[in-house]
Parts: sequence; structure tokens; C-alpha cells
Amino acid sequence: MGYDGSAFAGWARQPGQRTVQLVLEEALATVLRLPSVRVSCAGRTDAGVHARGQVVHADVPNHAFAPVRATLGYRLAGVLPPDVRAPRVQVAPPGFDARFSALGRRYAYRVSDTAYGVDPLRRHNVLWHRRAIDLDQMNTAGRMLLGEQDFAAFCRRREGATTVRTLRTLHWSREDDGVAAASIEADAFCHNMVRALVGALLAVGDGRRPVQWPAEVLAAGVRTADVHVAPAHGLTLEAVTYPPAAGLAAQAGAARRKRELT
Amino acid sequence: MGYDGSAFAGWARQPGQRTVQLVLEEALATVLRLPSVRVSCAGRTDAGVHARGQVVHADVPNHAFAPVRATLGYRLAGVLPPDVRAPRVQVAPPGFDARFSALGRRYAYRVSDTAYGVDPLRRHNVLWHRRAIDLDQMNTAGRMLLGEQDFAAFCRRREGATTVRTLRTLHWSREDDGVAAASIEADAFCHNMVRALVGALLAVGDGRRPVQWPAEVLAAGVRTADVHVAPAHGLTLEAVTYPPAAGLAAQAGAARRKRELT
Repeated sequence: MGYDGSAFAGWARQPGQRTVQLVLEEALATVLRLPSVRVSCAGRTDAGVHARGQVVHADVPNHAFAPVRATLGYRLAGVLPPDVRAPRVQVAPPGFDARFSALGRRYAYRVSDTAYGVDPLRRHNVLWHRRAIDLDQMNTAGRMLLGEQDFAAFCRRREGATTVRTLRTLHWSREDDGVAAASIEADAFCHNMVRALVGALLAVGDGRRPVQWPAEVLAAGVRTADVHVAPAHGLTLEAVTYPPAAGLAAQAGAARRKRELT
Repeated sequence: MGYDGSAFAGWARQPGQRTVQLVLEEALATVLRLPSVRVSCAGRTDAGVHARGQVVHADVPNHAFAPVRATLGYRLAGVLPPDVRAPRVQVAPPGFDARFSALGRRYAYRVSDTAYGVDPLRRHNVLWHRRAIDLDQMNTAGRMLLGEQDFAAFCRRREGATTVRTLRTLHWSREDDGVAAASIEADAFCHNMVRALVGALLAVGDGRRPVQWPAEVLAAGVRTADVHVAPAHGLTLEAVTYPPAAGLAAQAGAARRKRELT
């Protein structure tokens, strides 16, 4: 599913806040005629972060689901606000868990580095960075961060949660209109990790830091105020990958053991 | 220049309204330290219509321009709101008139024809049309409208203004994510013409009208309520073309004679 994060206080429910989870759960409850529905997603995005390829599951009693089975997607489209869309609605295979079955999450971070700002029609999900950035330098710096690493230096710490992640892709390229876009993929991300990585790479790209600096921060293993977390609105969750149906339950079990309540 | 038309009452100044012309003229007056500046543009877009390739000129006294000549674009970027950007600022060649020197205007109209709506990140400039549209049918219908024609049937009539225009391109294709986009180019457009053409073609595309219907409407030569003017927010002025510098003044003179006060 997709959403424009601009008017949301993030994915996760919070008292008194408009969140994507709240809006989606209320829409599902309306369409399914249930008092409440609980959903779970692959990437719990922060306030202001967008999504195009978010994946969500809900456990729904059959008596509620059966009558709308063929029309659920269409009905949801009529109930959801325009800043949230669910283009594909389907019955999940046995053992599927949107969060714990996922093998990887891919984000994009978009930056316009011209002196004149962002195309107004793209400004809701593209950051304006006023200094020109050198993507070759950023890609060199990014390659040094790949692999299974302890990303504690780029994560907001939470008690009892591991910060070891496997970063598979961190690559910048230019879109047709010159906007710089990073493709960032890992098995999972800890809190703030994508935006902290982007912040560190922007400092390399515009010449404020040497190319090996992000790798040095990673190796030091402690969070530092020198890394500026990039603004939320440049970030979009683009895709989530899952194993073939037969492996869903096994992956979910393994992921649950590995990341207890991260 | 570009703008997101969502929060504007169109291009042209109107008392008490936030218009692109007003915002740009006030920004220029601030940067040039003049009591007022008047600008003229190639396509005076309606309320809600966007632009990426709008072209604007202003006649500015040299005593005001000289001090900011090298920095005008940069200064404007700091003064303009984020929904208006002027990425290229330059001294115009002699005889240049943004409106009357133009040889052609190209618009895009974007439509998502899925049952599930528009990608939330594109919803500000893509129309949600709930019925699937057949682009081949629409392109066949569009070809019948090309050439120099009297587009009175697709124009809001104004006293004393000709409605003869030369339509050079009217072609639909799918963008990467499935959004249908029309590229529509003419020497100039009369009021409401692009959106009326799109409205007529959408009726062909979703099967409500036969493929020859828009050509029949054109031939009848009178405006009809059967043609639904498509909503403004799907429309974007993409580009304006000009002759080489040597022909600018001649083209401006010819266009002024042809379209007196259209």
C-alpha cells in the first residue's frame, strides 16, 4: 500500500494522533462491519515518511471477510482518504506475517541539490539540499557500510534490541529530472537508521566530510551528534521482499527470535 | 518556471486572490527593490493547473537589475514560496516576449484509471478516473482533431477572439507506474480548450462515446454540455517553444496581430 506521510504522525497508533495504522484500521472496520481490526506492517515509518510498497496484514474472522471477499479492495478505495491507498488486497498464504516474514525492506531517499529548490510538484517527497552533491563520492562511502554490521552508531538505541543489520544496497543515482535518489535495502532497519545513513552520506557528498567518515562512525559504534538525521519527507518505503510461500512461516519464526520486539 | 497550482487561484492577478502572477511579482519587487514589477507569461493557467515549463518575462529598469544580475535566481529562490520555483533566470534576447514570441505550448494531462485510486504521492497532479481507459481508442480519436481547425466547440467563447488554433500533438501513453499521460501541443490554446479536449477523449477511452465523437463535436462548431471539462488538477503546462533569437520580434508581431487580446 502507499501513503503520503505529510499529514500523518507516522505509521504506529498514538493517542490523539492521525496515524496511518489508525486510518487503515478504521477503514477496514467500516468495510468489514467489525468493531475493530488490528493490522501489522513491514516497516513502521516515522512521522512524515511516505510509502509506496508498504505491506500490511490483518487477521479477520471469516464471517466478516466472506461477504466482501471479492470487493474488499474496491470498498476500501471508497473509504480511505486520498493520502492512503491500498492498490492490492489479497488473501495471505498460510504462515504469512507482514513484518516477520519479510526478508528485506527497500527505501528511497530523494534529494534535489540545485540552488533553485525542488520542482513544486515533487516537493512533498524530495529534500532540498542547497549544496551540490557528488554521487560518486557518496557511493564510495556507501559501499564501505555494506554487509552485516552493528549499526548502533546510526540507530536510536532501545533497551534489549540488537542493532545488527545486513545492509545490502546503498546506491545513489540521478532520476530523469536530476533529482538524486538513494536506493537503500537491508534485511531490516533499526529506528532512524536510513535517515542517519543519508545524513552522513550527504555530508560526504557536499564535501563537509571525507569519504571514509561514515565508515569510521560505523566502526566507532556509538551514536554521535555529528551525524545529522536527514528530514523525514525525503524518505519513501518503496518495497518489501518475502520468501516464496513455503518459506513464510519459517522466516517469520527466525525473524521473531532474532529481533525480539525491536 | 514551475508551480503547484493546488493553492493558487490560477496564474492571472485577481483582487483578493493568491495567484502565481501576484506571488512572482511581489518576489521580484522584493529582490529588485522596486515598488512593483509586472510580468507576462506564455500560458495563463487556470485555478488548480500546474506548470513545469512556464516562461515569464519582465521589463526591469537597469538600475534595479544591475546590482543583482549575477544572483537574481538565487535570491528569488529564497523569497518565493516552495510551491513556486524559478530554476532558470536569464537576460532575454532583444524582441523577446514570453507570450507573443512563443511558437507553441505543450501540456500534459495525467490520469490514473485503476479501481484503487491514485498513488498518494502523485495525487496533486493526477486525476483519478474510476473506469479503465483504452489509449488506442483515445489516440485514434485524437488524431482526427489535429491540424489548423476552429476549436470553438472546445473553447469558452470570448467576444472578438478567434478560436482557430493549430493542434500539433494529442497523444496518450502510459508512464512507468501505469499513469496515462496525454501530451498536447498547439501554437496556442483558447480558454478551457485542453481540458475540454481531454474530457471528450476520456468519454471515448472509457466507452461512453464512439471514437469519432470528438471529431463530430469539433465539426459542429458549437459548445455543448455533453463535453465535460476535465478537472484542473490533472493538467500541467510542460513546455513552451520559441524561435531562434533572430525570429523573436517577428513572431511576436505576427502573434499579436493574429490573436488580438485572446
